[in-house]
Amino acid sequence: MDLQSIVAEIAAEMADRPDRGEVATYIPQLARVDPARFGLAVALPDGTVHAAGDADLPFSVQSISKVFTLAIALGRFGDDLWMRVGREPSGQPFNSILQLETERGRPRNPFINAGAIVVTDAILAGHQPRELLGEILQFVRSAAGDEEIHINKSVAASEEATGHRNRALAEFIAAHDNLIHEPDYVLGTYFHQCAIDMTCRQLARAGLFLTNAEGTPSLVGPARVRRINALMMTCGHYDASGDFAYRVGLPGKSGVGGGILMVVPRRAAIAVWSPGLNAAGNSHLGTVAAEILTRRTGWSVFG
Amino acid sequence: MDLQSIVAEIAAEMADRPDRGEVATYIPQLARVDPARFGLAVALPDGTVHAAGDADLPFSVQSISKVFTLAIALGRFGDDLWMRVGREPSGQPFNSILQLETERGRPRNPFINAGAIVVTDAILAGHQPRELLGEILQFVRSAAGDEEIHINKSVAASEEATGHRNRALAEFIAAHDNLIHEPDYVLGTYFHQCAIDMTCRQLARAGLFLTNAEGTPSLVGPARVRRINALMMTCGHYDASGDFAYRVGLPGKSGVGGGILMVVPRRAAIAVWSPGLNAAGNSHLGTVAAEILTRRTGWSVFG
Amino acid sequence: MDLQSIVAEIAAEMADRPDRGEVATYIPQLARVDPARFGLAVALPDGTVHAAGDADLPFSVQSISKVFTLAIALGRFGDDLWMRVGREPSGQPFNSILQLETERGRPRNPFINAGAIVVTDAILAGHQPRELLGEILQFVRSAAGDEEIHINKSVAASEEATGHRNRALAEFIAAHDNLIHEPDYVLGTYFHQCAIDMTCRQLARAGLFLTNAEGTPSLVGPARVRRINALMMTCGHYDASGDFAYRVGLPGKSGVGGGILMVVPRRAAIAVWSPGLNAAGNSHLGTVAAEILTRRTGWSVFG
Amino acid sequence: MDLQSIVAEIAAEMADRPDRGEVATYIPQLARVDPARFGLAVALPDGTVHAAGDADLPFSVQSISKVFTLAIALGRFGDDLWMRVGREPSGQPFNSILQLETERGRPRNPFINAGAIVVTDAILAGHQPRELLGEILQFVRSAAGDEEIHINKSVAASEEATGHRNRALAEFIAAHDNLIHEPDYVLGTYFHQCAIDMTCRQLARAGLFLTNAEGTPSLVGPARVRRINALMMTCGHYDASGDFAYRVGLPGKSGVGGGILMVVPRRAAIAVWSPGLNAAGNSHLGTVAAEILTRRTGWSVFG
Repeated sequence: MDLQSIVAEIAAEMADRPDRGEVATYIPQLARVDPARFGLAVALPDGTVHAAGDADLPFSVQSISKVFTLAIALGRFGDDLWMRVGREPSGQPFNSILQLETERGRPRNPFINAGAIVVTDAILAGHQPRELLGEILQFVRSAAGDEEIHINKSVAASEEATGHRNRALAEFIAAHDNLIHEPDYVLGTYFHQCAIDMTCRQLARAGLFLTNAEGTPSLVGPARVRRINALMMTCGHYDASGDFAYRVGLPGKSGVGGGILMVVPRRAAIAVWSPGLNAAGNSHLGTVAAEILTRRTGWSVFG
Repeated sequence: MDLQSIVAEIAAEMADRPDRGEVATYIPQLARVDPARFGLAVALPDGTVHAAGDADLPFSVQSISKVFTLAIALGRFGDDLWMRVGREPSGQPFNSILQLETERGRPRNPFINAGAIVVTDAILAGHQPRELLGEILQFVRSAAGDEEIHINKSVAASEEATGHRNRALAEFIAAHDNLIHEPDYVLGTYFHQCAIDMTCRQLARAGLFLTNAEGTPSLVGPARVRRINALMMTCGHYDASGDFAYRVGLPGKSGVGGGILMVVPRRAAIAVWSPGLNAAGNSHLGTVAAEILTRRTGWSVFG
Repeated sequence: MDLQSIVAEIAAEMADRPDRGEVATYIPQLARVDPARFGLAVALPDGTVHAAGDADLPFSVQSISKVFTLAIALGRFGDDLWMRVGREPSGQPFNSILQLETERGRPRNPFINAGAIVVTDAILAGHQPRELLGEILQFVRSAAGDEEIHINKSVAASEEATGHRNRALAEFIAAHDNLIHEPDYVLGTYFHQCAIDMTCRQLARAGLFLTNAEGTPSLVGPARVRRINALMMTCGHYDASGDFAYRVGLPGKSGVGGGILMVVPRRAAIAVWSPGLNAAGNSHLGTVAAEILTRRTGWSVFG
Repeated sequence: MDLQSIVAEIAAEMADRPDRGEVATYIPQLARVDPARFGLAVALPDGTVHAAGDADLPFSVQSISKVFTLAIALGRFGDDLWMRVGREPSGQPFNSILQLETERGRPRNPFINAGAIVVTDAILAGHQPRELLGEILQFVRSAAGDEEIHINKSVAASEEATGHRNRALAEFIAAHDNLIHEPDYVLGTYFHQCAIDMTCRQLARAGLFLTNAEGTPSLVGPARVRRINALMMTCGHYDASGDFAYRVGLPGKSGVGGGILMVVPRRAAIAVWSPGLNAAGNSHLGTVAAEILTRRTGWSVFG
């Protein structure tokens, strides 16, 4: 079966599934998203995109933005970044504060909230928040080849209004002298970066630079691409990263908005979106669809 | 450069390195291994093995045996195995007992000690220990195509004599009713399976079934092979699994004897051995050599 | 109201209470104890005992024995004992293993299981188990002035048969080189010391040496008595020690058999027994009765 | 020896000790206090105060203020307070956040920072911060019979400027819906209550209401006094509460400014001050002096 048919078939199967997980409810903008939504897009290095379902509806990428800020930070600081944040799976929920105490303010990896806050703090150095947000947007737009991508200010404002847990993380990191800027200053930027809206089509295209395939945007060097993929594989789904690797077999990064970005090295970038989440906070049908997709395409990196 | 040259060159480079880590000292059989040893072997699906250094000296595979017992257990129980053990990175050292308490006796994954003890308990069902050890040996010998592979009884005896930490794990699991057999009965088998001696050449060949490449032994189905590789990627190096994925980019499993088994899906199986360990208990030069090898061959699964 | 009347009245009130907690079920000898039992005895320095209810029925003292072994250990080793065990409340359940890992095999205090195992190991030095058990019995008999007190061998045998959790603790401590003897050897003694049977009357009398009152047996010096009482106050009820201090206001030590020994410095020793336990594993009605007793007598040490 | 002589003698002994601990350095106002300072005051129910050393120099009471706010909160809410905060020793440092995560935002007790923040939040209800601070001051002044006691605004301002760790605690509690007011609003009050300056003489007198002795101010009922004392005994010195009970044998509450308030039920209230701290953050010589004082007076509550 050809790729377009596989993509369309999966979208059709997902549309009918009764098990859709639970939509995030901590901010109204996420809570009111229709759980019946499902989108899937596969972008190939030649620019083709195979899409189906709600692949052209924008959703809040949330934690998927951590991939882009990590790419910017590695580009700017290289391995020095690892002095401030680790690169090991945490074995804990995305917003856990336990290891910050036992490990003295150094987050386990850049894909849990604490780690992403440190990454944002790092790339804020020498910038105004507005400037940095412009740079992040510019990075994503270049990656996707789409100037329409923007930040949803209403989402950012809601995040700020309800962000006690993230503020606790930032204050705790600051207490261990691992923030350069004031917590609220960093979080203002962090909440905005998480509030980027993208469609599956845009997100899949934005992920192409991570394939290291010829013809894709060269935004970071090939060795760094491999490393970002490694981090997505071991840490991209919080304390369900092992399960995602086991079932799907691709580097991936999920967001609480229900999106997942996946990379098939040298071959494709995939974006899937379904707003209902599983118990670990990752898109339920997004994961199911990804599992089916890699089975039908034989795209697992594990043989 | 051709593969044999790359392998030989790396072995030569490693021979000269002054940084060799620390040899394990908890049993005399490991403590007296010469830290100057280094072996490397790459087995290809066609049966060719490219080897260099001490690739024909036997060493104690220790935790690498967990890959083979997991393969047997998945073959026997399929996904039912996951009712008794998880498949997530633990974020803790290999012999940690913390999560056993907070997670009520269910180990995080089959590659930490607690998880491997549960796996051994599972496959003991309906067998005498001697019988099961025969089956494990037979599995490894079939995989490697080498009937010479054997268990080092002196190592097994030393492990039993010093095994307080593993006994604590087994007793704790039993206290949560997650062992079928008595702890000492399971540990007797466990210590023997860890005491298998292999050379790099034998181990690399024994890993070929995990490549899913044509012509390699078909000991478990291709879907299960991918899943074992996924577990090796996310959990194969304990709390340094993220670092190994980041630096090397291959599924791998290390042992305290200084060996590492790696899989290049569809292409090759690699065994490296250097007895000095890094802080996380994984072979120091083995990891360094693996990092160089994937860089020079372009074999990282991450592009 | 005079003391005998207070004691009788409380016993009568307790007999009628419908809320009786849950009897321990992990060994049959405890599981089959009648939850309707309630006994109370108050021993005064002059030898008088005020008793009521089932104060002359023997029950398994279990962890209350830790007070007597601690007294023996302090007598033998003095403050050197604290090199091997701490004297802080653990904030964890009685059988938790978490802190043994983070604190490298040194239990938080002598009244949690791990700490009591270390104490027993310490006083085993230079003794056969049978000899040490004889010494412990002799200590308790001298304290109580009653040669009838004995060990219930059937309880000890059941404890040994189901002791996985305690074996895990002992093996873990041994792994950190904080046991002199083999774990099973220590546990054999430990399970027997816990299996002492006593009546409330015997136990109250046995506690008189902890009052530092004139005329009571002088088994340890007055400074050590104060220290044992301090440990009973801060650590005697596991992770409900704070609650016991808050409600009752006396140093106390509970056992899973439903007994509690309490000390009113310079004035009295109290034993209460009701086999039903609360969520923290302490006698439910025993605690309730103790609270009423200190309120009616004004015996709280806190004014 | 009479009490005045004992007090004077201890002060003289402490003046000569070379071991003085380390003065807190996180704010300049504490960092520049002279480590040679030592004050001791014992207040008796009849109004007599025996004082020596620097007993009339004011110091920052810091966490000792938690005793007074707890008294106010218990007076206002009674046992309902325990729905929001526990009464168990935490077994963790004063500023630990670990248990807030595992126990869903409910602090272990009112004497660790997290618990005291919840208490302050509770008593803020229906008040402006200025008003509440007035009430707290009024409580302390009534207790001490001294209208001179005041808040050191410069200390409060410094606390606010460096309060990342406390902000992390407050934000985390708020994330679990266990704060009524905004974290910064509560912390503003909290930092001011900690910044009360008192002399040993004032503090000892302010503690008299906790003795339940006739003739002392009746600010809370006798049952509540006992309960506050119980909490001071089990939780008053953070993760060194067991050690303080063991060595001193009195309910006590320490502050990072080097002060300790102690209660001898029905007999006396004691304040000691020496700015150098031990490893657990409690006054080093203050604890030493307290130990000597209870030994010489026989005032331990443990016999």
